[in-house]
Amino acid sequence: MANPVVSPVVPSSGVRNPLGLSSVRLSPGFWGAPSAATIIDHCYEWMGRVGWIANFTDVPRQGREFSDSEVYKLMEAMAWAGDPRIDELTSIIAAAQESDGYLNTRWGHARYTDLEWGHELYCYGHLIQAGVARMRAYGEDRLAEVTRRAADHVCARFMEGTEVCGHPEIEMGLIELYRVTGAERYLEMARRFIERRGTPALADIELGRAYFQDDMPVRQAEVLRGHAVRALYLTSAVVDLAVETGDKELLATVERQWERTIARRTYLTGGMGSRHSGESFGDDFELPPDRAYNETCAGVASVMLAQRLLLATGDARYADLAERTLFNVVAAGPAQDGHSFFYTNPLQVRVAGEVLDGVSPRADGGLRAPWREVSCCPNNIARTYASLAAYVATADERGIQINQLAPGVISHDGLTLQVETDYPWSGEVTVRVAEAPETERRITVRRPSWAGGGTAEWEQRWQPGDVVRMELSMTPRWVRADPRVDAVRGCVAIERGPLVYCAESPGTSPLLEEVEVSTATPPVEDGHDLTVKARRIDSNGALDWPYGSSFEPTVGEDVELRLVPYFRWGNSGPATMRVWLPEA
Amino acid sequence: MANPVVSPVVPSSGVRNPLGLSSVRLSPGFWGAPSAATIIDHCYEWMGRVGWIANFTDVPRQGREFSDSEVYKLMEAMAWAGDPRIDELTSIIAAAQESDGYLNTRWGHARYTDLEWGHELYCYGHLIQAGVARMRAYGEDRLAEVTRRAADHVCARFMEGTEVCGHPEIEMGLIELYRVTGAERYLEMARRFIERRGTPALADIELGRAYFQDDMPVRQAEVLRGHAVRALYLTSAVVDLAVETGDKELLATVERQWERTIARRTYLTGGMGSRHSGESFGDDFELPPDRAYNETCAGVASVMLAQRLLLATGDARYADLAERTLFNVVAAGPAQDGHSFFYTNPLQVRVAGEVLDGVSPRADGGLRAPWREVSCCPNNIARTYASLAAYVATADERGIQINQLAPGVISHDGLTLQVETDYPWSGEVTVRVAEAPETERRITVRRPSWAGGGTAEWEQRWQPGDVVRMELSMTPRWVRADPRVDAVRGCVAIERGPLVYCAESPGTSPLLEEVEVSTATPPVEDGHDLTVKARRIDSNGALDWPYGSSFEPTVGEDVELRLVPYFRWGNSGPATMRVWLPEA
Repeated sequence: MANPVVSPVVPSSGVRNPLGLSSVRLSPGFWGAPSAATIIDHCYEWMGRVGWIANFTDVPRQGREFSDSEVYKLMEAMAWAGDPRIDELTSIIAAAQESDGYLNTRWGHARYTDLEWGHELYCYGHLIQAGVARMRAYGEDRLAEVTRRAADHVCARFMEGTEVCGHPEIEMGLIELYRVTGAERYLEMARRFIERRGTPALADIELGRAYFQDDMPVRQAEVLRGHAVRALYLTSAVVDLAVETGDKELLATVERQWERTIARRTYLTGGMGSRHSGESFGDDFELPPDRAYNETCAGVASVMLAQRLLLATGDARYADLAERTLFNVVAAGPAQDGHSFFYTNPLQVRVAGEVLDGVSPRADGGLRAPWREVSCCPNNIARTYASLAAYVATADERGIQINQLAPGVISHDGLTLQVETDYPWSGEVTVRVAEAPETERRITVRRPSWAGGGTAEWEQRWQPGDVVRMELSMTPRWVRADPRVDAVRGCVAIERGPLVYCAESPGTSPLLEEVEVSTATPPVEDGHDLTVKARRIDSNGALDWPYGSSFEPTVGEDVELRLVPYFRWGNSGPATMRVWLPEA
Repeated sequence: MANPVVSPVVPSSGVRNPLGLSSVRLSPGFWGAPSAATIIDHCYEWMGRVGWIANFTDVPRQGREFSDSEVYKLMEAMAWAGDPRIDELTSIIAAAQESDGYLNTRWGHARYTDLEWGHELYCYGHLIQAGVARMRAYGEDRLAEVTRRAADHVCARFMEGTEVCGHPEIEMGLIELYRVTGAERYLEMARRFIERRGTPALADIELGRAYFQDDMPVRQAEVLRGHAVRALYLTSAVVDLAVETGDKELLATVERQWERTIARRTYLTGGMGSRHSGESFGDDFELPPDRAYNETCAGVASVMLAQRLLLATGDARYADLAERTLFNVVAAGPAQDGHSFFYTNPLQVRVAGEVLDGVSPRADGGLRAPWREVSCCPNNIARTYASLAAYVATADERGIQINQLAPGVISHDGLTLQVETDYPWSGEVTVRVAEAPETERRITVRRPSWAGGGTAEWEQRWQPGDVVRMELSMTPRWVRADPRVDAVRGCVAIERGPLVYCAESPGTSPLLEEVEVSTATPPVEDGHDLTVKARRIDSNGALDWPYGSSFEPTVGEDVELRLVPYFRWGNSGPATMRVWLPEA
């Protein structure tokens, strides 16, 4: 048997084959600061401090009902990173597993009594993903054993009946465990969980059954809805199921759901989930910049879904959306030092946030926090950064496809490519052949849709030292929204390469609520920042009532407005911010 | 002693004196359909059906922790309406009162163990308001006795210490009970509850202490924030406190808070509370039309606050805001048949709601529901409709002020006025003198701010048969928003008289997301509706990604867009709706 592909998702078939961490090594670059190691260290330290690891031992329990999953997400990150602390964590969780495979710190004596909110199966899902990561990156060990026992327990307990978990996640885990072990019961269990959903399988709740995608069977849905992370995890598993069962109709259904979600329910940043209430997708075109929830984890989950669709179909649009989301949601999560994290990612912040240095009880707040009572995002970022190389390239029988532009070395089937680029700061990508086989191979580089789309392809017999290049124009671009996105009517945004920019105003200055930009003059580059011509306006009103027959603002002084890459905002303390700027 | 003024709020002093239900009798007109009696019947029937009355007897408890308050709100409505069923309800609740005055169906055996969320003191507040209504409208009875015993129990239990209730409400009740009884301990208890708040007095919660106005002392606050109903109930009590203690500085503080709230945190309809999350005020200028929460009860509470400020200061701006809120939030609550109610009052609905005919578990939904698991709104509407005459007129030593334009008879100090008007459908108001004293009296009629503001005043010795008239232009008006209200940039709304209008599209037609109105041609009146010139547009995009360098829509056919008064929308089944329309 060939070496396993070291990647979170390794389908049995598909138009593209994933190249995992043993085939792709990233050089430090955009994704090296902060590094996965820094983020893992941060999470490990906080997880210990708040007691979520100790929950697996005999001490009073701390944290929310899903805190076990944070330990597992961190273990998955450690598995990808080869961090030896995974063994210590494995010993701790293994000791808490019961003789029949049950493993959960909260529900030890009242199992599965609250499937809507209990998160037990959700936690297994993350355990299984950690276990799969370990099996692929390292091989059989005690974590693999704990994982199989937990998965077998789930199959024994849930194969018959109609139950599902309120938070989809285990479905993805089980299918990946099937892929790594070949045991069909895991695929069948996942299939049943997926098909039961929406029949309905769960109780009605105040937020409505759409919250956990139990409002209709997945085959009938036309768009992603409800809690964004739940929807994206479930849909990722549905792609896995469609691929493993050869169900082309199901795959096409998911593609249509994704299309409508992208066309009508996605922010310019790639962010998903516009509502704070239920952390959920809004209606079509309900995309307010200020109240955008855009949970960091939904960005992570969207990249997971896009990767699966890319592998299944080979369609570059999925890599495009992944790129947008990686640079403008995932990369926005951690502070530049890797020690604080956004949970929500709005596109406008009117009131500068307060500095948070302890455990924040809240998801939002306008500034990154070191930790939160719900701290899914740092751990999700950790496992994503640690496995990022797996998203960079794929292969088919003709050669290698470079889907994400990042510096590093890619090796597959005798062909070794050295990718040199300062992307996203520069649009130059150089691919240098370091090793080549005797036969022809095709090198494909995705040309991002913002640069016109398509691919650059070169097919020949390669020699070491051969070089191919792609050059993308990094001229800043004014961007406007479909008028049905009512919330940003009359505004422009600015993109440069794959990066969305924003105006950031330190302190509590009201500048950003009384400014208009002029699009007559192009943005000027200043290092990684941009400046645009703008003018201050005075609304001349709103001292008593903000509505009247007309509000012709008085035009004030011209100003230069500095724009920073959106992912970088909030790194210099409290500030107001906006991506969409009124157009003069 | 003179007959008591039969009104929810009767301050000991103030620039204006309230005229209550015994001085003002409304004729059927705008506020007669649906009638208070119809709404009271509806609430009484549902309250029985869902078991919230039976909770006071020995049966398993139904409903939420604050359901007692719904019974009390309904009893208050019955007190104003002279509905004899109040005696039956009084007997039921009296039997549940404990020997020390404690009365609550949920916490009988674990008193005051959860002040943040338990709502025990909140429920007393509504009990006391019902008791005060009964005392003023009828006199001493068993409900008055239950009320005093409960209030005395609260004073005994809470006079010392630092505790407050998570939901302000009892403060208003206690001050009104002081006003009706003269017992100073009630005023002192209210003062302490108010002054303790924000010190802080409650635990931090996920929504933050601003949710229940415990983030700072009321004297330091600059604007209303947090849960809108809580904020408005608290602020109403603060006005009461300032008036009863002669604290001019505190009154001025509240006036400034109100000003900023009106200038920056209030919808065109008068609706307050833009966030679903926490049912709360948003930041300044955060006023999205689609996600406007605008709880009906917040509208009721805003009218309560405005009335207090009007009495304290005589400033017509408070009556103006009350008018706007009454016609566009309070009147929007009940369906025209009085048998279903809105909880949230958004200014845009993109997806037509589903018909709700049972107890809805949700607050929103785009259609009125007969009842909800949280059913504060119907009962709040019931007590407001039943006491509406108390908001119409005031008096001072020189005469009568007509603050709200509604048909009826107003009598005070020998002067009896018959008001004839079809307002808000017509702008003609005729005041006919039916009885007059020997001395000069001034008749003052408020001229709404939308008609230029100010007052019309006539002062003379009146003879029966004398007539004064006011004529207001009811020409429809285009309205635009301060550009800082980002969410409605480039849009117009239409008002006619005090009514905000909206476009309503029955069924699930996408018309309202692809239409622009032309403001070159004035709106045309068609009965109570209006039509405006508009044109369909085709966004030419958004099949894959709704952002790009430009979206120049293709202009399609001209259409006539029918507008209906906002308060009336949703009466003909599922529909989409919008108040703010893109301007061509």
